[in-house]
Amino acid sequence: MRRVQHDRPIITSLFDGQDFYKFPMGQFAWMRYPDVDVIYALRCRTKGVHLGELLDLGRLREELDHVRTLMFTNSELHYLRGTNEYGNRMFCEPYLEFLRGMRLPEYRLEKVGPDIILEFRGPWPMVKLWETIALAVVNELYNIMLMKHLSRFEIECLYAAGRLKLAEKIKTLLQHPDIFISDFGSRRRFSGEWQQYVNEVLCEELKKQFLGSSNTGLAMHCGTTPMGTNAHSLQMIIAALRAGQKDWLRESQHEVLEGWWQQYGHGLSIFLPDTYGSEFFFDNLTQDELRNWKGVRHDSGEPFAFGDRLIARYERHGIDPKTKLLIFSDGLDIGMILKLHAYFSGRIKLSYGWGTTLTNDLWPNEWRDGLWYGPLSLVVKPKSANGKGTVKFSDNIGKFTGEPSDIEYYKIGAGYTNIDYVECKV
Amino acid sequence: MRRVQHDRPIITSLFDGQDFYKFPMGQFAWMRYPDVDVIYALRCRTKGVHLGELLDLGRLREELDHVRTLMFTNSELHYLRGTNEYGNRMFCEPYLEFLRGMRLPEYRLEKVGPDIILEFRGPWPMVKLWETIALAVVNELYNIMLMKHLSRFEIECLYAAGRLKLAEKIKTLLQHPDIFISDFGSRRRFSGEWQQYVNEVLCEELKKQFLGSSNTGLAMHCGTTPMGTNAHSLQMIIAALRAGQKDWLRESQHEVLEGWWQQYGHGLSIFLPDTYGSEFFFDNLTQDELRNWKGVRHDSGEPFAFGDRLIARYERHGIDPKTKLLIFSDGLDIGMILKLHAYFSGRIKLSYGWGTTLTNDLWPNEWRDGLWYGPLSLVVKPKSANGKGTVKFSDNIGKFTGEPSDIEYYKIGAGYTNIDYVECKV
Repeated sequence: MRRVQHDRPIITSLFDGQDFYKFPMGQFAWMRYPDVDVIYALRCRTKGVHLGELLDLGRLREELDHVRTLMFTNSELHYLRGTNEYGNRMFCEPYLEFLRGMRLPEYRLEKVGPDIILEFRGPWPMVKLWETIALAVVNELYNIMLMKHLSRFEIECLYAAGRLKLAEKIKTLLQHPDIFISDFGSRRRFSGEWQQYVNEVLCEELKKQFLGSSNTGLAMHCGTTPMGTNAHSLQMIIAALRAGQKDWLRESQHEVLEGWWQQYGHGLSIFLPDTYGSEFFFDNLTQDELRNWKGVRHDSGEPFAFGDRLIARYERHGIDPKTKLLIFSDGLDIGMILKLHAYFSGRIKLSYGWGTTLTNDLWPNEWRDGLWYGPLSLVVKPKSANGKGTVKFSDNIGKFTGEPSDIEYYKIGAGYTNIDYVECKV
Repeated sequence: MRRVQHDRPIITSLFDGQDFYKFPMGQFAWMRYPDVDVIYALRCRTKGVHLGELLDLGRLREELDHVRTLMFTNSELHYLRGTNEYGNRMFCEPYLEFLRGMRLPEYRLEKVGPDIILEFRGPWPMVKLWETIALAVVNELYNIMLMKHLSRFEIECLYAAGRLKLAEKIKTLLQHPDIFISDFGSRRRFSGEWQQYVNEVLCEELKKQFLGSSNTGLAMHCGTTPMGTNAHSLQMIIAALRAGQKDWLRESQHEVLEGWWQQYGHGLSIFLPDTYGSEFFFDNLTQDELRNWKGVRHDSGEPFAFGDRLIARYERHGIDPKTKLLIFSDGLDIGMILKLHAYFSGRIKLSYGWGTTLTNDLWPNEWRDGLWYGPLSLVVKPKSANGKGTVKFSDNIGKFTGEPSDIEYYKIGAGYTNIDYVECKV
């Protein structure tokens, strides 16, 4: 039933805007931590943007309420059952049955001063499925708000600028046929319609250089690969559950990596090392893990030094880095992709998970009359697990998440000494 | 009845693409020269473009045949009857009745080597109505041909580029609120749909700075002023009819100016002086004509010197140039409009009839794989009248029209000594 009283609801299916990795991670949580009670919370990292003053909160409620009416369709479950890019039958029938019967849990939306609290609470395997959908909704409402300040022609020119910027990217990539990219931009997309348009155009114009989308619905729609690895939430929640125990950070890292490998094997074995600092992660890795896992996703910190250290580490352990995959996904733009490729090509296998500047590159990126005409740096991250605060560092202290006292406690646990700071633009 | 077997015919009404001045000129011809047998012919002045090799001539025939099925509608005739911008009841009932009953005369289309002959023959008041419609059809077919070389996305980017270039023009004009422009771009338009879009956008964004369109159908659609003065064909045909007589060029100029003034008075009294060179024209003008007529349209030659000479001439005859109107219409672009305005503002009343770069500014203007991706310099001009060749000079020898022997004969008649040459880009 359609409950949103506008042109059409922003989210029309639980596959749309749903990053594919939510399903392997969700199954992992559902099998091992089904009753962990988590809270995920929205945070806007763009300075000077106060969503409580800007968004139509009534409409936000309607959109979120509408999402809660949606259920996975039979075809969507067939698609998950048939997904074989990361190994055959990666989803077990009981998990698919769980998905068939579920609706997304309740949310809490409050205006607090000029800002909003938007939180999702419930069993981890369910709450997890809110993250990218909630981000897609908030982003699109922000853009709808901005467009109310434009004339019909200005809106057409906005889309025209988006098209021409996309055309420039395609032209550049076609000149570098050894660069392969994926769309990681669901959570930061300008709108659902625009992300679909971008995906369709990339399929037609970029052809084999476009691998697929993290947006499960769009990968299904376009026939491309549903792209996904894993996210910080695994480490964050399992660490929180163990917090207070001896060596809880090391132990939780082992718990995640061993469980994940057991569950999905080589197919989904991509390290995401920066949750508590990449140096801590790699120092804590076993020789076998470094050797067996397929590769690494870089999501924060200076990428060239990161890659150099990674390649050196592989070599130090007698592993040929050319057999390993390095996926870049930290606020990429076309210039950075070209630079990274020029620097690392031939030294390690490369892939690029391209987010905001692929799916939300229409605005001029400027402040006008007190409004930011550009993409927001929004995240939805775990805030607590079974009542205990979660923490994330990453290799950029600008991305720290958690209560200050928890952060200090974790810093000691991880021996974290990094002081690199980069503002989160996207 | 729709006879074109494509999405829709290019021309769907005899008002569409029909420059408004065709009607006052047509009535003038119908009242005074109803039986003059004329031939109008298409010419492509863009070097290296051979339409016979490029156009789908079968489709061109279909489109032209479709135009010949069209008749003026009751509403269109009401609109002409009600037009009062240039004087009340400027069209007499018998002429409107003539329009109601007519269809456009036959055409001749032949492939000759790589080029085409496209000619229209019949009574002057009818053939006249083919000119801008035929140009609009040929232009749109050329653009359809070019677009067949583009992907879906490239076509979208073409329109996107057109929108952004239009937005730049609007932004610039809004910074100069004393500049008023008109659309003179029917004959060179990218497509009928695009010209309509440009007009709608200019109404919404430029508001009062946009006066109207020469396209009668679009002026009617948008509720703007149908813009029009008069064209070279009047002089060309009347001169041809008198050729061989003593002082035929001077006499034909008097015949045109006296007849036109008698017919339309001050309302439509805009000189178009360059048919046989502007110096010849002005030297041949009476004191009264210079004093009474509203102003001048500049359509060829160096515009700054032209305007300076015009202002000096008015002053020499004790006429305040600030009471006179100078309309620029020779291949304008936004840069030239700004320059002309800066130079002449405050010295004479100004208006700008903006053609090709307003309604056909989407392509990158470049040769690629042997094809010209840009607007064509197409004209449809009188070729003969009652079997005698017509001639046009203009103040740019690049725009000469006529048989070489006729041109020489006319040059002597006009004492034409100008040797300025500018390539006709648009």
